[in-house]
Amino acid sequence: MNTIGNIFKVTIFGESHGIALGTCVDGCPAGIPLSENDFTEDLMRRKSGAKGTTPRKEDDIPQIVSGVFNGKTTGAPITILFHNNNTKSKDYSQLFDHPRPGHADFVARIKYNGYNDFTGGGHFSGRITLGLVAAGVIAKKIISPINITAKILEVGGNSNIEEAINHAIETHDSIGGIVECCVSNVPVGLGEPFFGSIESEISRIVFSIPAIKAIEFGAGFNVAKMTGSQNNDNIISADGKTETNNAGGINGGISNGNDIIFRVAIKPTPSISIAQNTYNLKTNKIEPLIIQGRHDLCIALRVPPILESAVAIALADLSLINKK
Amino acid sequence: MNTIGNIFKVTIFGESHGIALGTCVDGCPAGIPLSENDFTEDLMRRKSGAKGTTPRKEDDIPQIVSGVFNGKTTGAPITILFHNNNTKSKDYSQLFDHPRPGHADFVARIKYNGYNDFTGGGHFSGRITLGLVAAGVIAKKIISPINITAKILEVGGNSNIEEAINHAIETHDSIGGIVECCVSNVPVGLGEPFFGSIESEISRIVFSIPAIKAIEFGAGFNVAKMTGSQNNDNIISADGKTETNNAGGINGGISNGNDIIFRVAIKPTPSISIAQNTYNLKTNKIEPLIIQGRHDLCIALRVPPILESAVAIALADLSLINKK
Amino acid sequence: MNTIGNIFKVTIFGESHGIALGTCVDGCPAGIPLSENDFTEDLMRRKSGAKGTTPRKEDDIPQIVSGVFNGKTTGAPITILFHNNNTKSKDYSQLFDHPRPGHADFVARIKYNGYNDFTGGGHFSGRITLGLVAAGVIAKKIISPINITAKILEVGGNSNIEEAINHAIETHDSIGGIVECCVSNVPVGLGEPFFGSIESEISRIVFSIPAIKAIEFGAGFNVAKMTGSQNNDNIISADGKTETNNAGGINGGISNGNDIIFRVAIKPTPSISIAQNTYNLKTNKIEPLIIQGRHDLCIALRVPPILESAVAIALADLSLINKK
Amino acid sequence: MNTIGNIFKVTIFGESHGIALGTCVDGCPAGIPLSENDFTEDLMRRKSGAKGTTPRKEDDIPQIVSGVFNGKTTGAPITILFHNNNTKSKDYSQLFDHPRPGHADFVARIKYNGYNDFTGGGHFSGRITLGLVAAGVIAKKIISPINITAKILEVGGNSNIEEAINHAIETHDSIGGIVECCVSNVPVGLGEPFFGSIESEISRIVFSIPAIKAIEFGAGFNVAKMTGSQNNDNIISADGKTETNNAGGINGGISNGNDIIFRVAIKPTPSISIAQNTYNLKTNKIEPLIIQGRHDLCIALRVPPILESAVAIALADLSLINKK
Repeated sequence: MNTIGNIFKVTIFGESHGIALGTCVDGCPAGIPLSENDFTEDLMRRKSGAKGTTPRKEDDIPQIVSGVFNGKTTGAPITILFHNNNTKSKDYSQLFDHPRPGHADFVARIKYNGYNDFTGGGHFSGRITLGLVAAGVIAKKIISPINITAKILEVGGNSNIEEAINHAIETHDSIGGIVECCVSNVPVGLGEPFFGSIESEISRIVFSIPAIKAIEFGAGFNVAKMTGSQNNDNIISADGKTETNNAGGINGGISNGNDIIFRVAIKPTPSISIAQNTYNLKTNKIEPLIIQGRHDLCIALRVPPILESAVAIALADLSLINKK
Repeated sequence: MNTIGNIFKVTIFGESHGIALGTCVDGCPAGIPLSENDFTEDLMRRKSGAKGTTPRKEDDIPQIVSGVFNGKTTGAPITILFHNNNTKSKDYSQLFDHPRPGHADFVARIKYNGYNDFTGGGHFSGRITLGLVAAGVIAKKIISPINITAKILEVGGNSNIEEAINHAIETHDSIGGIVECCVSNVPVGLGEPFFGSIESEISRIVFSIPAIKAIEFGAGFNVAKMTGSQNNDNIISADGKTETNNAGGINGGISNGNDIIFRVAIKPTPSISIAQNTYNLKTNKIEPLIIQGRHDLCIALRVPPILESAVAIALADLSLINKK
Repeated sequence: MNTIGNIFKVTIFGESHGIALGTCVDGCPAGIPLSENDFTEDLMRRKSGAKGTTPRKEDDIPQIVSGVFNGKTTGAPITILFHNNNTKSKDYSQLFDHPRPGHADFVARIKYNGYNDFTGGGHFSGRITLGLVAAGVIAKKIISPINITAKILEVGGNSNIEEAINHAIETHDSIGGIVECCVSNVPVGLGEPFFGSIESEISRIVFSIPAIKAIEFGAGFNVAKMTGSQNNDNIISADGKTETNNAGGINGGISNGNDIIFRVAIKPTPSISIAQNTYNLKTNKIEPLIIQGRHDLCIALRVPPILESAVAIALADLSLINKK
Repeated sequence: MNTIGNIFKVTIFGESHGIALGTCVDGCPAGIPLSENDFTEDLMRRKSGAKGTTPRKEDDIPQIVSGVFNGKTTGAPITILFHNNNTKSKDYSQLFDHPRPGHADFVARIKYNGYNDFTGGGHFSGRITLGLVAAGVIAKKIISPINITAKILEVGGNSNIEEAINHAIETHDSIGGIVECCVSNVPVGLGEPFFGSIESEISRIVFSIPAIKAIEFGAGFNVAKMTGSQNNDNIISADGKTETNNAGGINGGISNGNDIIFRVAIKPTPSISIAQNTYNLKTNKIEPLIIQGRHDLCIALRVPPILESAVAIALADLSLINKK
């Protein structure tokens, strides 16, 4: 299930330490200008390097392999490759037998009978989201003038982000965070009952991003404490604008013309340098695990462009379906 | 998009005030005992009648139309019908022009160019979940011995549920709530990277249930405030059991053998008897709307069996895929 | 896999001798006039009664259960039911152990571990095509002004159809036939590379019609004997009209604006009253089988409206995809 | 629609004169030995070079980019690339305005508003089948011990193949052919009613192979001339073996345990060096077209390994579904 979408179909492939990873984007309309440069901005935003992100440096240079001709999309599938060149696979060899808490090491070993590529997290690595971001760049062009902006609300429970990062660095621990996404210029009518509600389509792809554990639309969990008269958004114009936006721009699973708003919770990076007492499948004992390797200290910092891409992909598909 | 699933495919159809509504369940293995009686318990749990639920009474008697022979499933699609008999369509005629805040009235009118069946909410009615519950009964049999239990944690911000309902009745307002779902006896390995994570598949179908606005797995939004050393669940046995369960039974999108835990927020019923100032598309003015008709005061009360069904359907599909 | 289509999705359900059978059509645009009367013509054409068809008489009255409001489609799924009322299940009980040659009796028993509904052929009965014809009526409205006409070219190797039928009646044997389908007013551009060529989409659904064993487009098998200079259709106008139509209106899997032409071969009804020496799974011996029950002598006679419906469904989906 | 399959999903991408083309194979079980060498045999069989095939020479060296670790499949998507290196794009520039008869030039231009990559046929080139053959190599491993063998029955209407080729070379024309495919060691029970019959699944993917215009299973078009008593295959053993095999190993769309047999017709290569009078969209006149470039004279010669791959892909998906 590495493909998503009905009309706009995105396939993701690759591993953290493999030859290359990328995406194949099918169902993109013909005639959209597209070049490698178009990917630079979002890829740079996703990239590590800032304080709190992994010291692993990759060029992340996209190569368009198919589907573009004379600088425009052709209607044929667009394949984009990213070649890995900075891999240190020896870092990970012990983790096959002594799986990291909070990681997919254990479940992948069982599910794939031990045949999974465990180096660098393999296909479970956050690095896979490179393909998602690349596909998102294309999706954003399709849904224009719909505009998507994600921003960090807090990390480690603190809206002063630099302070929280510094504290985490000092304590050698990782921290989580909350990212909010706002989608503006949305037409009325995106979303397909019964199973293709906007919340369904967005949450589905958003939960494919590693480390996300919660999502709430509009007033979110707060609706549980509200009354109908508090929560209902009165309509104040013929085009559906509402006085408040507790619904997060969605009624009955369909966009109502107001901004689509949602927030996600990102867990702290499970790879930490503090010793953890966890089961060793080789020795059959609970033993302290010290994780080597290079990791983000706060993945949330890198989530905004990935989240935007995920939403763009979902909305591109819903937009193309709605044109039927 | 009224069909969901890859191997176990569920189609939902019908309207609140139409002749009948129901479900068509395809991909169910042959040889599973199934009779109309099997649906009684979950349908009764979903039914209205308790304090805080709609006074509309329907028999909700399922009719198995196909796919069962000599009391067992045949491998052919199973169609289950529920005939509507207690419909009062005149209640709703005004709402086409004066759409209710918080409802799908406005978006449905725009999306379907005014051709949508607006009586009783039409295809957007919570009554459509009858088909979901029926499909869920079949799904639960497929995934046995996996066990799913949903329960109300709070309504109106109050864990004393009767008190909260009484207060809402007195104030003529509706209230929201939180429901928690626990899935036990889950084998390791359900969930399909990259886009078929358990969180993806569960959230996708859960957000097709009307009125749900948020979902969180395991520690949920709290992970954003936790450190890696707090949030990580140390593995303590060879079968993957963990000391804590902040992950909600899921790592890398795959079940890890611990209970899958998640919570959803249900908004207060948007239909309330208090006047609301909202746009009238006929008069082109903001005017007070008084909603007639029969409605739940707290939909959350009826959500547990629906939520269980949704999860069962998602897990049935993932289970059948995993057997490949 | 009882659902087909990407945007326009058709689900088929029911058994020959069950309570009811029918179809659920999802993804139909809103606002299309639709009533039970619209189905009459194609259902009558499909019906038995003519010389050479089964003596089983069914009313075949469609009941629209959902998706239509005030005489127009709503955009919600359209479910259409046909109630069975003329079933004689005792006719078929022996065939479970002594499977009929040329029928699905044996494979269904193995595939479904003996749980299949074998009465009247169950879900394998040609009666299931009622749902297909109903869905086709809707599809034809969507693709208008595209026009589809199927006609019998020959039965029993003879283009004098009445003569062939009479001969078959005299010899107590069944006969096959060839049906040709012509689709006119087709716009240029339907069909989706690589796997959604028009030939792919048409052949896929056509081969779901029981008893069809071959299909050829345009010059069909004759192309194998032709040279390029004979087979190529020279383009003679700016809108793509060609001098000849050996391609059957399709190049590179995409409609070229000329008529789409194809022919299918229908095998003789496998149920014949002549004794057949075939394996009895109960006695473990090859024994003569005399088939009771009511059967068509030449199914080909009933295929034209079914074939048209199948093609209409395929083209409705491709048309809606092409509008993206 | 460049992805096919439900559990075993194959995506095809690339253009004739692009950087690279290939396939992404998702849903392949983990633990299957796979290396670049495994592709050699089928790629060599597909390759040009024999008399009657194109003088364009490509290395066709596969590069496994993802999904394989320590020589075995991992369960993650397997991406295989083929780099193009022998492209002569200038050969094709005139054909955009003066589209070749029998080719996709005209329809692609209309469908994609002129943005299609027309060099070498772009995404419509037979070269795209490289990806199909690569995916087929993997599929064949999954379905083992099912065995698939395709062979040429005739070219240019002549079963003496060399003679027919020589005659075509002399006359500077191209010729078509017939290829037969036999699938042995098939278990009973593959194929999924109603829309996933074996004939449906095979024909669907087979018609995605460029130049195929007809398919017939078992006795094929001859069934139209047969009686039921001639055509029915009497069952002669408990495992379903039949005396004859007019059904081509399929009843009710499901494999019956006998060899699956079918034949396809391949049209003569539309690119011929003889002048053709066809419409020029630039001059708006019918003008003689002389095609330059390098082409196969008889594509049928190269079809057998491609056909085997297509069938293997369809059967791999049906096999994995049947294990549910």
